[in-house]
Amino acid sequence: MNVDHLGIAVPDLARATALWAPALGVGTPPVEEVASQKVRVAFLEVGGVHLELLEPTSPDSAVGRFLESRGPGLHHLAFAVPSVNDALAAAERRGQRLIDRTARVGARGRRVGFVHPSGFEGVLVEYVEGP
Amino acid sequence: MNVDHLGIAVPDLARATALWAPALGVGTPPVEEVASQKVRVAFLEVGGVHLELLEPTSPDSAVGRFLESRGPGLHHLAFAVPSVNDALAAAERRGQRLIDRTARVGARGRRVGFVHPSGFEGVLVEYVEGP
Repeated sequence: MNVDHLGIAVPDLARATALWAPALGVGTPPVEEVASQKVRVAFLEVGGVHLELLEPTSPDSAVGRFLESRGPGLHHLAFAVPSVNDALAAAERRGQRLIDRTARVGARGRRVGFVHPSGFEGVLVEYVEGP
Repeated sequence: MNVDHLGIAVPDLARATALWAPALGVGTPPVEEVASQKVRVAFLEVGGVHLELLEPTSPDSAVGRFLESRGPGLHHLAFAVPSVNDALAAAERRGQRLIDRTARVGARGRRVGFVHPSGFEGVLVEYVEGP
């Protein structure tokens, strides 16, 4: 298992990219819209881990509600695993509540699945399969 | 620059360790008290990145106030840099407000320095020097 990326909720993707890219010493990344999640995202790589900047395309979205209630900031922690379904099943065996019972396709076309934040005491955890 | 660790605020370090260690497939880490920050911490390694579980030893501490206002969860993002002082100076040149103007000794005896969360739109960023 590895840390794949760290999701950061931002109100304005262009402004956030202009803030983070120079601080990390990286170029401007492409922007991807994930319609199913109502977000626009950009991944910035730093030493093998990515920061995923997430801008909601609607206030009626998980990230939009997060921004409304908590403001911008750290949103979720994603681990790379060989099998998202196996990782979700293991979480369920540990008694953790799931958001996704099986993998679905997320950003970058990768298979992903989320554990409810109650499962990790307030940390929203995502499992993601390698490309 | 690399992601060194990710700080997670927890109300009970033993309980949080018992939750995270099996999920990451790692053993129980040692506990360190950082008196200057009024926290007890434990580092769990996952693929070269660490999760730093932080339990306040007093409600009158940065992590205690964070738990009180936001509840447990993702707290800060730490980058390994060659020089904390250089990284803080670069942040200041980018117009970011600093918490520390120069490096001080933090957990694991490492030199650390923090940028104010306003500098990264709600994300508390730490710079830490290698061991």
